Order: sequence, then C-alpha cells, then structure tokens
Amino acid sequence: MNVMTRSKFQSGLDELRDRLTEMSITADRSIELAVEAYLARDRGVAEQVFKLERDTNTSQREVDQLAIDLLAMQQPMAVDLRFITACMKINADLERVADQAANIAQCALAELNSEKIELPVDMARMATTAAGMIRRALDSFMAGDAELAQAVLIMDDVVDRMNKEVFVSMASLMRSNPAVVDRALGAVVVARNLERIADHATNIAEDVIYWVKGKDVRHGAIQQAV
Amino acid sequence: MNVMTRSKFQSGLDELRDRLTEMSITADRSIELAVEAYLARDRGVAEQVFKLERDTNTSQREVDQLAIDLLAMQQPMAVDLRFITACMKINADLERVADQAANIAQCALAELNSEKIELPVDMARMATTAAGMIRRALDSFMAGDAELAQAVLIMDDVVDRMNKEVFVSMASLMRSNPAVVDRALGAVVVARNLERIADHATNIAEDVIYWVKGKDVRHGAIQQAV
Repeated sequence: MNVMTRSKFQSGLDELRDRLTEMSITADRSIELAVEAYLARDRGVAEQVFKLERDTNTSQREVDQLAIDLLAMQQPMAVDLRFITACMKINADLERVADQAANIAQCALAELNSEKIELPVDMARMATTAAGMIRRALDSFMAGDAELAQAVLIMDDVVDRMNKEVFVSMASLMRSNPAVVDRALGAVVVARNLERIADHATNIAEDVIYWVKGKDVRHGAIQQAV
Repeated sequence: MNVMTRSKFQSGLDELRDRLTEMSITADRSIELAVEAYLARDRGVAEQVFKLERDTNTSQREVDQLAIDLLAMQQPMAVDLRFITACMKINADLERVADQAANIAQCALAELNSEKIELPVDMARMATTAAGMIRRALDSFMAGDAELAQAVLIMDDVVDRMNKEVFVSMASLMRSNPAVVDRALGAVVVARNLERIADHATNIAEDVIYWVKGKDVRHGAIQQAV
C-alpha cells in the first residue's frame, strides 16, 4: 500500500472515531432530554428527542457506510479490522439508545393531559446513571481501556436494581390505588427503557473488553506467525 | 488469490450462512419454549430457554470470530464484504432475541407460585407471530429477497398493535381489579419482550433491504470503475 492510500485509510479511521464520539454525545443528550420531557410533560422537549433520533438514524447509515468503505479500501491489519468491526457494533447500539430515548419521549406525550401525580421513583437519577454508562463505555472504547469498560458492567447492576425497585414499588402502588395505574405503568415503561439503555452501554463495554483482549491475542498470533 | 485460498474463503462463507441458519432455528425454538414456560408455568421448560440462551452466546462469539477471520483472510469483494458485515449484525440481533426469550422465561419463574388467572390476552399467538418474523427475516436474508424482507416490516405493525392491545387491556384490568396487578404486569412485560423480538426481526429485514439495494449500488459502482 502506498503512503497516500495509508494516509487516506488513517484519516478514515479518525473520522470513524470522531463520528462515534459525536453519536455518543447525541445519545447522552437524548436520554437527558427524554427524561426531562417525561418529568416536565413538555411536548417541545419530546419533539427535540424525536429530531435527535432521526439525526441518529442518518448518522448510523453514514457511519456504517464509512466502516464498510474502510474495510473495502485495503486488506486491513488485524488491529484495524477489530477496531472497524467494533465501531460497527457500537454504532448499532448507539442507534438503539436513540430509539429507547424516543420511546421515553412517547411516554411523555402519552401523559401530557393526564393528572400530575408525584411518584416515589427517582427517574432523573436513573437517567443520569444510564447516560453516564453510555459516556463511560465510549470513553473506554476510545481509550482502549478494559478496566473502565469493566466499571460500566458494574454500573449495569445498579441500573438493573433501580429498574426492579421501580417495578416493585409501582406494582405495590397500583394494588393500593387503582386510580394511578396509568401513571405507574408509564413509570414502569420509562424505567425499562432506561434499563435497556444501560444494556446497550453494557454491550459496548463487553465489545471493548473483547476487542482489547482480542488485540492482545491477535498480536501474539501475529508474532508467532512471524 | 490462488484457487486454494478462494475455495477456503468460499467454504468460510458457507459456514457463516449455516451457522446463522442454526442460530435462527434456535431463536425460533427459544421464543416458543419461553412462552410455553410462561403459559404452562413450567420451570423445566424455562430452564431449557436459559440453556439455549447460553448456547446462543457461545455461537455469537464463534460466528463473530468467523466473520472477522473471513474479513482478514483476503481483500473481500464488495458483495462478500456486505454479506459478511450483514451477518455480523444479524448475529447480534439473534443473540438479543435469545436474551428476550430468557427474560420471558424469567417472568415464568416469577409466577410459578402465584395464583393461576386466565388473562384476556392471546400470548401464544403473539409469540407465533414474532417467531415467524424471525424465520422470515432470515429466509429473506438467505434468499437475498427484499420483498420478503418488506413483508416482515408489515408484520412488525401487527405485533406492535398486539403489544398495545395487551397494554391497554391489562391497564384496564388493573384499574378494575387490583388483585391481578402482578399477573397483569407480568403479561405487559412478556408482551413487550415479544415486541422487542419483532423489532430485532425488523432490524434484520432492514439490513436485508439495505444489503440487497447496496449490492446493486456497489455493482454499478464497480462497473463504472471498470
């Protein structure tokens, strides 16, 4: 491969990295806006979330194409190959995070005209935790840091527990007060969506761990082959 | 590329195709067993679903590795490249279908000791529809048939509607009879998992449509370049 092609390939890799970073910032923002729309019952904020979801769909297609073009451009080295395929997976996860945020925004719309009731759940904290997981998962990827990725897996247990708590407390509330069934069900759905977002962060973190380990394995294999 | 390498590459592609077909059969089986476990409250059947989920996790890693090895083996032609990357995505979707089936089996375990109540929902039909979508999505992929993939997208609307119906009817039941809150919530969760499975089938179908169209686009681009 000549120098020109290598440099084009390298700038393609850099672009891939930048695009994923942008997408993770958008994902983070979507989650916070979605829960804000839900808590404040704000149609305008919900609309922003839908707009971000459409943008993310476009980005996903573009990032996918970029990755495929890079794979087609040359015979990638093992380390680049694993990086590019990891990017494709993370891309898919980030797109689904935007979907989950849009689901939450849909819940916000469904409750716009219902009576406002304070529920004994801290959805804002759950959202902040889930959004933090996405940010850290991406950081761990950019840094190739398996330990940071491991920390994301631990945070997933926290979000799972929060989700179970919402489920149990909402079930109990519905049993004692049938008038709040719709609002409580809404909270169950929002919490499940946040839990799914945490799962996507976990997928990314698992890919990072596999990728980092794989790099080592590949490296060893290449050295042996040489 | 010499004949030996090309034939090894081709047999790798065939293996990838066979492995994904196996995984889709397992996914289909998982969905049906999971709903059987839920409806019959059968721990043994639920355990089978957990076993299939573990098997699928192993398969996913192996299929991923196979795909990466194929990408590394040679400079793939555009059509092969898109096939391999589509396989990686479908692989991820099938693994998540197995996760969703395991979630349903978890619901079955949670209700083992609760009172049996007939609920006005046809979960078996919803499961059959969702499983059928997975099967057809894979068929459309294997046949490279964008029209069949399109039919999967239409089925997704049916499952979405079923999910909404379960939600509305369970909410209404909970309002009128607080004693069934737990069972009704269980039904809401199972229906949502089935709806997620349908979403994965939709993802696969969308990948197929994109892949089939992409093949044409790439083909044109190659001809122009020549």
